[in-house]
Amino acid sequence: MPFSWPSKIRFVDTDASGRIHYTAMLRHFEAAEHEFLEHLGCSYQAGRGFEVDFPRVHVEVDFMIPLSYNNSIETQVRVEKIGNSSFTLAFLTLLDGQPATKGRIVVVAIDREARKPCPIPDRLLACLRKDQ
Amino acid sequence: MPFSWPSKIRFVDTDASGRIHYTAMLRHFEAAEHEFLEHLGCSYQAGRGFEVDFPRVHVEVDFMIPLSYNNSIETQVRVEKIGNSSFTLAFLTLLDGQPATKGRIVVVAIDREARKPCPIPDRLLACLRKDQ
Amino acid sequence: MPFSWPSKIRFVDTDASGRIHYTAMLRHFEAAEHEFLEHLGCSYQAGRGFEVDFPRVHVEVDFMIPLSYNNSIETQVRVEKIGNSSFTLAFLTLLDGQPATKGRIVVVAIDREARKPCPIPDRLLACLRKDQ
Amino acid sequence: MPFSWPSKIRFVDTDASGRIHYTAMLRHFEAAEHEFLEHLGCSYQAGRGFEVDFPRVHVEVDFMIPLSYNNSIETQVRVEKIGNSSFTLAFLTLLDGQPATKGRIVVVAIDREARKPCPIPDRLLACLRKDQ
Repeated sequence: MPFSWPSKIRFVDTDASGRIHYTAMLRHFEAAEHEFLEHLGCSYQAGRGFEVDFPRVHVEVDFMIPLSYNNSIETQVRVEKIGNSSFTLAFLTLLDGQPATKGRIVVVAIDREARKPCPIPDRLLACLRKDQ
Repeated sequence: MPFSWPSKIRFVDTDASGRIHYTAMLRHFEAAEHEFLEHLGCSYQAGRGFEVDFPRVHVEVDFMIPLSYNNSIETQVRVEKIGNSSFTLAFLTLLDGQPATKGRIVVVAIDREARKPCPIPDRLLACLRKDQ
Repeated sequence: MPFSWPSKIRFVDTDASGRIHYTAMLRHFEAAEHEFLEHLGCSYQAGRGFEVDFPRVHVEVDFMIPLSYNNSIETQVRVEKIGNSSFTLAFLTLLDGQPATKGRIVVVAIDREARKPCPIPDRLLACLRKDQ
Repeated sequence: MPFSWPSKIRFVDTDASGRIHYTAMLRHFEAAEHEFLEHLGCSYQAGRGFEVDFPRVHVEVDFMIPLSYNNSIETQVRVEKIGNSSFTLAFLTLLDGQPATKGRIVVVAIDREARKPCPIPDRLLACLRKDQ
């Protein structure tokens, strides 16, 4: 069973089309992402002691079913791929059990001093592997 | 020369990492998209008389250079592909002439009554073709 | 005991100062507001059948304690005042039991046809009075 | 003549009511605020060398005319009041020359080490006084 995070489409998430604005979906993904990492027992802050930043270098979303104000959704998150200095998280949002949106973010570990990609810190790496 | 729209990274666009939050990039893309369409002489509202909605079914962004508060950027927009009922817009953001982010959105024409994809309205189609 | 809604400060809520951006607080207020109304058994949508809109005509927030990423907050909501065509909701956000922010919004009932203030619909009025 | 900053209501600024969402107004205020300070020749970053933060402790907005997608607005900004450790900026947004929204933010200078209010740094103070 994948990790799943419940949330509701808020009024601020909608636009004049009457449906969700596409940027708002990413706020729900982000909440699910951080709850997922916390659930695994790790966090980006853990890496901070190692002077590592975790910018996103890629983000994508597909919209299958329009979401509207007050819809209750579930967002599933899983580790899709772990590389040397980057990893990919995959998202699937369900509305009444039907796939409504899916997405993917690629996060890169960056050495803050050198400003270059560096290996994913061991502690975070071990956490991410728990989901695979 | 592709269409280009200038904007500035605002404080609200940043997050605690000190750089732009990835959702904020999409607000800049959206401003550039609407100015681009207006520049071509058409708009999504023009299609509204035809009872057509234009939801996004796909959005993606790649981040190459981190953007920070007060950076002045230029966002280029072009029509990448025109299909029967959908079209793709491509974005390229420059910081001091260097590619900072690039992205792509796929917009689908939806018949509001039938709630199904329909041909892109003629007026919008003619507008989009001006860029190809 | 006032109604209270728990939420967490997300990364997208922060800015380059490392703390919450003031616009983000209003997203938490909004979530609390809608959950509060639902808790009372009413909603703005109930009023929609009566062809009434509910724009905000005033919003204010005071910040007492800076909020940061991952802070767990509680937002209390109560009906502060009910007028003829408008009502005021008051918000108080607690961090570890300490007042962190407080705010207030004034909502007006607007007849959609006449585009003028109109009496608060009976059903919504009865709901709001439950909290007084 | 007060300083004035032009902007456009974007689609992301709207909500399912078809009008601007109240949080979006604050993004336009913020852009106007930073352009106003730059116009005066100063910035919050100038103060950073002095290890001072500038959190907002109060924000308020009144909405007089509903704003909609694609509206072109002008936001006037002026220094309303300068205190010892805080100052107030006032905003007035015009749509076709008519007052549409007005607002106010109170900014406090905070010594980052002591985490307490401190005098507004001289350089910023001198800048703000240019507008009075």
